[in-house]
Amino acid sequence: MLNISERGAAMPESPIRKLVPFAQGAEQKGRTVYYLNIGQPDIKTPEVAIDALRIIDRDIIEYSHSAGGLGYRTGLTKYYNKLNFNITPEDIIVTTGGSEALVFAFNCCMNEGDEVIIPEPFYANYNGFAKISNVNIVPVTSTIENGFALPAISEFEKLITKKTKAILICNPGNPTGYLYSKEELETLRDIVKKHNLYLISDEVYREFCYDGKKHISIFNLDGIEENSIVVDSISKRYSMCGARIGAFISKNKKLMSTALKYAQARLSPPTLGQIAGEAALETPQSYFDEVSAEYVARRDVLVEGLNKIEGIFCPTPGGAFYAVASLPIENAEHFCQWLLEEFEYNNQTIMLAPAAGFYATKGLGKNQVRMAYVLNKDSLRNAIECLDQALKVYPNRTINKFVKAEI
Amino acid sequence: MLNISERGAAMPESPIRKLVPFAQGAEQKGRTVYYLNIGQPDIKTPEVAIDALRIIDRDIIEYSHSAGGLGYRTGLTKYYNKLNFNITPEDIIVTTGGSEALVFAFNCCMNEGDEVIIPEPFYANYNGFAKISNVNIVPVTSTIENGFALPAISEFEKLITKKTKAILICNPGNPTGYLYSKEELETLRDIVKKHNLYLISDEVYREFCYDGKKHISIFNLDGIEENSIVVDSISKRYSMCGARIGAFISKNKKLMSTALKYAQARLSPPTLGQIAGEAALETPQSYFDEVSAEYVARRDVLVEGLNKIEGIFCPTPGGAFYAVASLPIENAEHFCQWLLEEFEYNNQTIMLAPAAGFYATKGLGKNQVRMAYVLNKDSLRNAIECLDQALKVYPNRTINKFVKAEI
Repeated sequence: MLNISERGAAMPESPIRKLVPFAQGAEQKGRTVYYLNIGQPDIKTPEVAIDALRIIDRDIIEYSHSAGGLGYRTGLTKYYNKLNFNITPEDIIVTTGGSEALVFAFNCCMNEGDEVIIPEPFYANYNGFAKISNVNIVPVTSTIENGFALPAISEFEKLITKKTKAILICNPGNPTGYLYSKEELETLRDIVKKHNLYLISDEVYREFCYDGKKHISIFNLDGIEENSIVVDSISKRYSMCGARIGAFISKNKKLMSTALKYAQARLSPPTLGQIAGEAALETPQSYFDEVSAEYVARRDVLVEGLNKIEGIFCPTPGGAFYAVASLPIENAEHFCQWLLEEFEYNNQTIMLAPAAGFYATKGLGKNQVRMAYVLNKDSLRNAIECLDQALKVYPNRTINKFVKAEI
Repeated sequence: MLNISERGAAMPESPIRKLVPFAQGAEQKGRTVYYLNIGQPDIKTPEVAIDALRIIDRDIIEYSHSAGGLGYRTGLTKYYNKLNFNITPEDIIVTTGGSEALVFAFNCCMNEGDEVIIPEPFYANYNGFAKISNVNIVPVTSTIENGFALPAISEFEKLITKKTKAILICNPGNPTGYLYSKEELETLRDIVKKHNLYLISDEVYREFCYDGKKHISIFNLDGIEENSIVVDSISKRYSMCGARIGAFISKNKKLMSTALKYAQARLSPPTLGQIAGEAALETPQSYFDEVSAEYVARRDVLVEGLNKIEGIFCPTPGGAFYAVASLPIENAEHFCQWLLEEFEYNNQTIMLAPAAGFYATKGLGKNQVRMAYVLNKDSLRNAIECLDQALKVYPNRTINKFVKAEI
């Protein structure tokens, strides 16, 4: 028998994939589906980036340097140094999206069977990268009651074993939108210093911090230069997810020379994405101001609307464009399928992502959903109304057992 | 101590990387260096592909489907079906270069520690992909005396163990330029059928077959539909290496659904490369005719020129744009470094790739080099003259012990 590999069979499916046929079914019935389940923004890519393609003056679309074109890395260095990263172009490897940077990080820091601690709920694709690299994710649980704040040091220290090699955070976070404070980051610094771990920080939502809060990178912390890896991507920053351009950034020279070998194996990151990405460095501040204002307005519509519905609790995210809410239901997977398969309100329904797929601990997050506020405010209002109506008629609605904490 | 991973330390460096500083040194001395060491063609990308970027009419550079845009896959299907692949868009996953397709193939077909048999010499980056996937390459040796023809069935069968899951070929081959005959491919078919193995065929140089020979894909063979995976790329076909667009193609449904999970983990192949790639499907036949004629002319200049030099033997490649030659020296790595560091002829020198890096068996290919005929004919003539002069003065020249076989 010709078998597929066991590891291939064990690769996780996307947690929302199962729901896609039901969404297609709802559309075939002529229903409007509000897609709050995905992180593909509807925000326009900066014109300066697309214009760079329109005036492309190359005869050959050649490989770039495996670490990315030096011109682009020099431009990126300026961008990062405005954020006080204090780096040089040699500290950057341009990657094929943030995804590749994460796989590089896992492969360079860990052997097969080693462990990385990640606060849960976390971006579900980390599970896939961990499988690809054959490392184990050890979750440390953050709770909706605490607004997904960083768990206490003691919770981390309970989990650290000989096999622990790294802590991975996403800041601001997908799926929670949580923005770590300086104190929380300093806590992480103390842990990685004490236990000699790598600190991998996925900062792809850096530009999206709200309410006057400032993003703090792990590169703004002193004393962990050798431990720190920033994973970045231009996908969300410039709403150009399809460019597939990210970055692996570290001041640890040995780590960089190791990551470069992985980069050389796949020859080059995408050249066209780099052309657009380099041009996007000239995006005016007004673009970010407008986009941020738009996301804040959407967030407010979403979070305020949700919290008005009896039995729903949604902490206010400090950044990114996601929110996790708990619903007065027991099984969000069933509820999300029911929304698409059986429910309609004025011929509309909504697609949400069940949050259990963002937890590594079995059983957690079962009554939670993730929503991406990547739709305009009117659509969000309609979506919230749908959800309100749905909960009134959902046959498996529970009495809300959740008591809101002070946060 | 904060260590990098053992597997990261074990990742192979590019076999030519060590020589790069010496090439830079030669350039700093004001010498002209003819770079025959790399596979970046100087051929222009089809205008139709670059024009598609110039008239791009998108506001957002979005993710595509994880398997690649359906429009592009439909276009690709037509391209492949003209070559009698007999496939549908569902049999294609668009990948980030051929590199990613190879990693998908290794991960889907093999577990950690499993074995893939590859005729050597082979594309050196296969070593990197094997390390990334933690599978072992078992080489079956083809020899320059036989013009790098496929080794006998008995040689393969000697190597097959319980851990053998696949055979990988590159056709036409990098580094040898060898084009497999129908009989050789049928031999491979018989082996994979009998021993229940996957057959992975890297066909990225398909368009470059010379002397009236026709490329035969493994998809043109009957009876191994479930076993067959074609790895493809548009990098060489349209001289657009920087687009980073390849393909993983199989009619094995279970394999495709497994590969799709890996594709979903990294979200999307590059959208901009797909736009250029889809447009490139309209490249007129005249482009390929001209490019092929150019490569044949270069090949003839190179191979005839090399074989005229005493002590050099270079079999005539049937495809691709590489040739492997044996030189009257003992250590090509030393010779290649000497060429860059100490030699000059009319203020010119050459950069070659030592072939030992393309063999998995230690000690093989030490007196061989790979040359890519990616330079124009005049440059190639100058490069050959340099090599001729160099061998006259190289202090470690050996008497040629090689007897040319009839091929």
